[in-house]
Amino acid sequence: MSTTETNLILPTAADVRAAAGRLRGNANATPVMHSRTLDERVGARVYLKCENFQRGGAFKFRGAFNAVSRLSDEERARGVLTYSSGNHAQAVALTGRLLGVKTVVVMPEDAPGPKIEGTRGYGAEVVLYDRAGRSREEIAAELQRERGMTLIPPYDHPDVIAGQGTAALEMIAETGALDVVMTPCGGGGLLSGTALAVKSAAPGCRVVGVEPEWADDATRSFRTGELHTVHNPPTISDGLRTPSLGRYTLPLVMQNVDEMRTVSESDIVEAMRFLWTRMKLVVEPSGAVPVAALLADPGAFAGKRVGIVISGGNVDLASACELFARGA
Amino acid sequence: MSTTETNLILPTAADVRAAAGRLRGNANATPVMHSRTLDERVGARVYLKCENFQRGGAFKFRGAFNAVSRLSDEERARGVLTYSSGNHAQAVALTGRLLGVKTVVVMPEDAPGPKIEGTRGYGAEVVLYDRAGRSREEIAAELQRERGMTLIPPYDHPDVIAGQGTAALEMIAETGALDVVMTPCGGGGLLSGTALAVKSAAPGCRVVGVEPEWADDATRSFRTGELHTVHNPPTISDGLRTPSLGRYTLPLVMQNVDEMRTVSESDIVEAMRFLWTRMKLVVEPSGAVPVAALLADPGAFAGKRVGIVISGGNVDLASACELFARGA
Repeated sequence: MSTTETNLILPTAADVRAAAGRLRGNANATPVMHSRTLDERVGARVYLKCENFQRGGAFKFRGAFNAVSRLSDEERARGVLTYSSGNHAQAVALTGRLLGVKTVVVMPEDAPGPKIEGTRGYGAEVVLYDRAGRSREEIAAELQRERGMTLIPPYDHPDVIAGQGTAALEMIAETGALDVVMTPCGGGGLLSGTALAVKSAAPGCRVVGVEPEWADDATRSFRTGELHTVHNPPTISDGLRTPSLGRYTLPLVMQNVDEMRTVSESDIVEAMRFLWTRMKLVVEPSGAVPVAALLADPGAFAGKRVGIVISGGNVDLASACELFARGA
Repeated sequence: MSTTETNLILPTAADVRAAAGRLRGNANATPVMHSRTLDERVGARVYLKCENFQRGGAFKFRGAFNAVSRLSDEERARGVLTYSSGNHAQAVALTGRLLGVKTVVVMPEDAPGPKIEGTRGYGAEVVLYDRAGRSREEIAAELQRERGMTLIPPYDHPDVIAGQGTAALEMIAETGALDVVMTPCGGGGLLSGTALAVKSAAPGCRVVGVEPEWADDATRSFRTGELHTVHNPPTISDGLRTPSLGRYTLPLVMQNVDEMRTVSESDIVEAMRFLWTRMKLVVEPSGAVPVAALLADPGAFAGKRVGIVISGGNVDLASACELFARGA
């Protein structure tokens, strides 16, 4: 672990390797897919690490499982807590079920029914709150106090970040040397964990984070070195609607990421369409974001060996069909 | 090769193994996928051999490539010919491009534009015909005479059948012993090739073919021992709208297949929905047919190790979205 001026203990590549050991046999060793059609279109050699095939349908299981695994028996007995209405909620709930740890997920009472049911389906207690009333952080803090539960936040936590980095570690072990690795960027957990893994396993490899134009807080933060935020951005990439990088992920991104790119909403739909129809992969909008960057600017990747982490595949068919119909 | 009373030389398991040698390095060694959710729901251990990830998006590449590979230099120089408006057309066209063999595909002039363009995109010459006029067989026969081209039919050909059997061979090499192997059944090329492979590699394993109720010609043929036909059945499984088993596939199915099952149209849509949303796999209606059989009657498979060949993933998104909306 290394410390920054703010005295945070940032995770390191060694933490990612340790997380990989904890995940072995628990997380899926997801396949790396390849498409001659994509390679020809981009003029590059492209590998997709398919975390849409991960347990719970997204990379989030890696971070959640790693974090909960590191708790003491006493902490496990008191249970864990998170706030999320997305893939992290299900990842924590599933981890709790596997490790026999009680889980509570704080969700807004207007969250989509299937997400609430999905999280309950994995055995979590769902605590609903009124968005107009107290914040989810306040409610979580109260549950921590009352029940002594441990909070596992969606991205800004060293063990969560280290877990997310294991996908890239597996990818490079399979593909060998790469010139560029790209991931989507929301709160920066996947991107900063990936950057730790890549810079250690392949120091010459560039790490690129990609955001929707409409949620470009991390890109602005990266370019200025100061934390920028967005408020509830209207991007279709629901996994990337986070307001900003975090206390851990901002310095990690500044230290280890080489470039941030943004893509338009229509780039994202076109990338989804390519992945679904040509590669037969169901990928959610957030997961298609780095492929959108590739297809929108192939010249930047010509002749390169490119690895991409496809973050997840949890998408409601009706919503996806609407996107395809609108984008057509 | 073994002969039947009609003096046809039927392909054997040795032909499937020889085809596997020809396909090595040319066909994709497609992944075998597995889902804890599916296993729990069925109470079985289920493996999916994902030919939706095959070159050209379907298992058809295996048979086409095997057949064209076996032609003499002289035959290759004259080119090959087929009639199909589906996955076999693209498989032949792609094979021709890879092996430097001219290909002609006879298609009805009202075939969907994307299918015609897709086939041309792989470099085939598309000969369009008016359905109200001469049959595709007549047109193909004329081209054979005039240009000396070799016909590679969609299923009723020993080398095509042997090629299709290689998917099951690869699956069993990866999964080990299985109790049941299921495939969809249209003209019976995939089913009869699979049965040859399975009965040789794992004699105790049952082989089950599955058809839509609305295209149950093979099921009726199997039960009566006499060839039954259907005329242009209205099933959503466009790959299984073939009129009947063939001269080669009927005896092979009678000899090596243990059971035929049928599924309803809504079973097929529900199986597609499961594959797309839970397993993140884009599978076309025909490809979902054996999974539909599994989900519709889990009791028949409880406690078993089940292997399924997912035949393909070539589906127009708009049509699939319509099915999902209607079935919801």
